[in-house]
Amino acid sequence: MPYADLSDTARRWATDPAIDLWVVVAPRVGDHASMIGVQLGSVRWNGMGVALLAGTTEAPSALLREQVDRVVPGPPPPSPRGIVEAAWAAGLDDLRRVGVIADARAGLDAGHRAGAGAIVGIAASSADRRALLPGQPDVIVAPDGLASAISQRWGPARAHRERILLNPGPTVASDRVHRAIAGPDLCHREPEYTTIAVRTRRLLLEVAEAPVGWEAVLLAGSGTSAMEAMVGGAARPGRRLLCVRNGTYGDRMATMADRAGIPHTDLPFGHTEPADAAAIAAALDADPTIDAVTIVQHETTTGLLNPIAAVAAETRARGVLLAVDAISAFGSELLPLREGGIDLVAGTSNKCLHGLPGCAFVLLSPAAIARVRSAQPRSIYLDLAGYLAAAERDSVPFTPSVPAVYGLLAALEELLDEGVEERRSAYRSRIDWLDGELARLGLEPAVAPEHRSASVRAVPLPPGVAYPELHDRLKAAGYVIYAGQGSGAADQFRACLLGTVTVDALRPFITELETILASVPA
Amino acid sequence: MPYADLSDTARRWATDPAIDLWVVVAPRVGDHASMIGVQLGSVRWNGMGVALLAGTTEAPSALLREQVDRVVPGPPPPSPRGIVEAAWAAGLDDLRRVGVIADARAGLDAGHRAGAGAIVGIAASSADRRALLPGQPDVIVAPDGLASAISQRWGPARAHRERILLNPGPTVASDRVHRAIAGPDLCHREPEYTTIAVRTRRLLLEVAEAPVGWEAVLLAGSGTSAMEAMVGGAARPGRRLLCVRNGTYGDRMATMADRAGIPHTDLPFGHTEPADAAAIAAALDADPTIDAVTIVQHETTTGLLNPIAAVAAETRARGVLLAVDAISAFGSELLPLREGGIDLVAGTSNKCLHGLPGCAFVLLSPAAIARVRSAQPRSIYLDLAGYLAAAERDSVPFTPSVPAVYGLLAALEELLDEGVEERRSAYRSRIDWLDGELARLGLEPAVAPEHRSASVRAVPLPPGVAYPELHDRLKAAGYVIYAGQGSGAADQFRACLLGTVTVDALRPFITELETILASVPA
Repeated sequence: MPYADLSDTARRWATDPAIDLWVVVAPRVGDHASMIGVQLGSVRWNGMGVALLAGTTEAPSALLREQVDRVVPGPPPPSPRGIVEAAWAAGLDDLRRVGVIADARAGLDAGHRAGAGAIVGIAASSADRRALLPGQPDVIVAPDGLASAISQRWGPARAHRERILLNPGPTVASDRVHRAIAGPDLCHREPEYTTIAVRTRRLLLEVAEAPVGWEAVLLAGSGTSAMEAMVGGAARPGRRLLCVRNGTYGDRMATMADRAGIPHTDLPFGHTEPADAAAIAAALDADPTIDAVTIVQHETTTGLLNPIAAVAAETRARGVLLAVDAISAFGSELLPLREGGIDLVAGTSNKCLHGLPGCAFVLLSPAAIARVRSAQPRSIYLDLAGYLAAAERDSVPFTPSVPAVYGLLAALEELLDEGVEERRSAYRSRIDWLDGELARLGLEPAVAPEHRSASVRAVPLPPGVAYPELHDRLKAAGYVIYAGQGSGAADQFRACLLGTVTVDALRPFITELETILASVPA
Repeated sequence: MPYADLSDTARRWATDPAIDLWVVVAPRVGDHASMIGVQLGSVRWNGMGVALLAGTTEAPSALLREQVDRVVPGPPPPSPRGIVEAAWAAGLDDLRRVGVIADARAGLDAGHRAGAGAIVGIAASSADRRALLPGQPDVIVAPDGLASAISQRWGPARAHRERILLNPGPTVASDRVHRAIAGPDLCHREPEYTTIAVRTRRLLLEVAEAPVGWEAVLLAGSGTSAMEAMVGGAARPGRRLLCVRNGTYGDRMATMADRAGIPHTDLPFGHTEPADAAAIAAALDADPTIDAVTIVQHETTTGLLNPIAAVAAETRARGVLLAVDAISAFGSELLPLREGGIDLVAGTSNKCLHGLPGCAFVLLSPAAIARVRSAQPRSIYLDLAGYLAAAERDSVPFTPSVPAVYGLLAALEELLDEGVEERRSAYRSRIDWLDGELARLGLEPAVAPEHRSASVRAVPLPPGVAYPELHDRLKAAGYVIYAGQGSGAADQFRACLLGTVTVDALRPFITELETILASVPA
């Protein structure tokens, strides 16, 4: 896919078909030539080209020939040359935008060898379908289902397609990451997996600028799985947690403590109000049974940053652990680990790291490693001590999400190619641009400027604009925004700048937003 | 990748480079031409071809020209035509086996457009590296790191590569599944995700032949996450579980109950001894506070099948729920849901369904749906009631593993193209063949024939053969076996037939095994 760096990326993603040219390689099509001809006509009405590979179809009927744009010569499949020649003849210069339609394995193989972006098998019976399986088509359809399958999966009006994602993750990730996740099938008990996992954990610590002695644990799951593992391991038996709450995710950690039966004291703040380090210090001083503090670095609820460094100074001074949900902050916000005071950090692959969902992680200081080993395990799957023990044996306790780990490793390498500071500063300048544009349109985010994150903005809905209408109009232009949450659930929307999206690719978003605002009756 | 259906698949996977031809598209190479020339020479020593795209390199040095097999004309990048012509000129008929080396975005783009299987960026400085990022190379290397990066990732001696996996999952999956997981980035709050999740859940129920009223829950995690969610929701507060234990996974469910604080009675059997339905009935009759039975359908520990239908008859007769770990059985063993008596089923994407790891699931009967809603939630992430409540709102509680769900859906469609009964019978006839070959070699699996599954065999190590040596020799031939577990940890190995591997592709495994056995001193 094109990188989301051009001003027309969103529009093209929202309107183009996924495939520009279908090449029919169908030696056995004879029986169904008329039906397939009709179906191909429908594909052409959808604005996609169709070519027929000559010599591969037994006596193509006149109807079939009539329904294709051209007949292209070429060696028989599985050679990919005829398919490639058809692309060149159609003036196409991207083989990923070629689709292949075939009714025998050789034709499907030719499609794979040509680097085709779509490979469709046609089969009229169960036995024919089974015979096509080794050709590994993306889908197998009956002759009379060809046009509708193509239209639904690859046509210009398909619903499921690339769009510029302005939700707080999953984000638009690069082809580098998408290609990586499709890597080789791998047994997680082999040393090759260990090598990959060790490197991934090391790069997570490197990106976090973690001091020596820290460890990283990978979990197969969403960020919430990492949060819950972290909360479950943060306090010794009989001790309490102090749960700082100023949004949905701070609340969630308190609920996790409830469900695990861990006693906790809550310290609530408003959803647009940063936590007060002095209040946290006072709460710690008031109750020496508090073993750890849970806090969210960046509340995705509103785009609010909590003052992690100031809070860490208080926990450091008191020898209390600080467990930080950095799920939507990791990679885009400075995490001051070197100064001490932070002990556990939960994160995920698919937000500011630009990996894909399926892999989460917890980073642990030496003190946290000792702590989780002394905590009462309340789960097997979410027991950090179990993951650490397995890692010491170069092993993993459960089957990891190997593809998501491939993706995370590629995303971390991409981040290091960019530079850790450069990533943070790119996020900051991109969101500064958005803030300027929102201000120009009279839209003021809910959080005060000095507490805003580098990625998420919760914005009051303009008077007269309902969220569903705003969402759907922006989506039609190629941008996916997100609903408000927490205290802003009813009257805010969120615009989140995560992933590989440039300011240029965002300009039409502002233009569309402006148009929508202008269309509201005064 | 080729489907694992040929007798030479394992050998080719174990010995071939991943890339046959590297095409250099490097307009700015001038400064580093000598160094790159030396590096390319090293690539050629590794048995891979190298071509230079003419007209794209400023005055290529004599050294550079000397180190390539040929210079190929072609239009300038980002046109992919020169790269494709280079492949044809080298006699290559698979564009996925072409790699591209480029030092500017246009060359990288050309590689993507040509369907190249590897895309390598060369950059001599941080600024150059950043400039290449939008070209989305698979890796960016310094000029003097080119040969080693290529050798380690794509060379014939690379460690991380396709092999025929005889471990009990992850399995060898089709390109159909691998292509699907690389699908579009998607926000899980959009209706497009709902459509995909609803269809995936429906197809899981279809494959299971579940009666009307059953529901399926998808989790981001390994099979263990689904097991633990199932165990946590199976009993009402104050009631007990009966945990049937005859292997590592039966034991694990008892440990899960321990950690969750759920009282349980255990019914142990030997690791090669199927559970006795009459003993289960007696245990239920002896204790009316037992609310549910946990059992493993197929103990991956040994390849042992438990008599699920007979056990279900007893739970059905007593109105007690039966929670089945079907993780390594789902798709390959008959699961008698229609007869009643089974209420919860845990499974995963990456075993006999041939998806990729990262997505697990629990199927629930109407009685189980009511039960998990009445259970005490001990977790947020593993709370089935939370997933069911979200599904009723067409939502999900946490970010799903979208790529793994794409993969699971493609795998389910592939399974339905094959046929549910046909899949089971293909597994059974493939393992029958293996049993015959093992018998011929004098290797008798630990489990009696009538209790053996359709996928896993735990086999006593032949006298004089240590597991590490057996593993490594078979791995060198392209096959990955698995260590023994449980009672067989010290003296068994496991050969597991899951995934898209045919008998033909397995014949060399037997030949190699035979050679190893013959080499043992009598």
